[in-house]
Amino acid sequence: EQIARERDQERARGRETRYRVVLEASETPILVIDPEAGRIEDLNGAAALLLGARRDALQGSAVAQAFEGRRRGEFTEALRRAAADKDAPHLEALARRSGRALRLVPELFRASGDMAMLVRLQPVADEERGGSELS
Amino acid sequence: EQIARERDQERARGRETRYRVVLEASETPILVIDPEAGRIEDLNGAAALLLGARRDALQGSAVAQAFEGRRRGEFTEALRRAAADKDAPHLEALARRSGRALRLVPELFRASGDMAMLVRLQPVADEERGGSELS
Repeated sequence: EQIARERDQERARGRETRYRVVLEASETPILVIDPEAGRIEDLNGAAALLLGARRDALQGSAVAQAFEGRRRGEFTEALRRAAADKDAPHLEALARRSGRALRLVPELFRASGDMAMLVRLQPVADEERGGSELS
Repeated sequence: EQIARERDQERARGRETRYRVVLEASETPILVIDPEAGRIEDLNGAAALLLGARRDALQGSAVAQAFEGRRRGEFTEALRRAAADKDAPHLEALARRSGRALRLVPELFRASGDMAMLVRLQPVADEERGGSELS
């Protein structure tokens, strides 16, 4: 029983390491969000760069705080709506620290009972701005 | 004890799901390799596209098989050497099925005791080819 438990824990650590290595190797800027708490669980260097802050400053912080004029409940609700929207599955927001206009592409998934949310960030070119802006 | 074990397993499943969702969300083509067996443990859709085969056909197969004129032992050894090479931390190879020249950028990491290897794939433009070609 104890050995089985140690094997499970080892396997969990292996998965954890693979998760972190793959997240960081991705050039796609990615945030992993707890949609209940509205907090950034994890992010990669590419995402920190677009948001204009160090990764350790962003990890664990409220995702709404990283954007201009966003309140926590309203923002995570907008992300949830976008994740379910087939026509416009994204929203745009201005990164507070970098001043950059970003498109957020959210995806809800179930991870061991809880819902989690992956958000891809894409810089928005100036000429594209407008249309789906929500702020 | 039983409850603790179930909690561990639940956590492991959560990490597993996050790993798979992040791997697939990455637009960076990524292979995760078992460097001992020389097999592809996991890959994302972007990597399958460059290699010219379905993901399920590639998952679990020998990584050397996906490239022209590569033998398994020699190929994983070349990947290991490249991972340790500060000056040229990559190698080039021709994807057997797609015929595309690819740069492979390997990174060794330790995951719960075993070594694992992440390999990023980059298409090589025709004019860049030569130099570090190994085949």
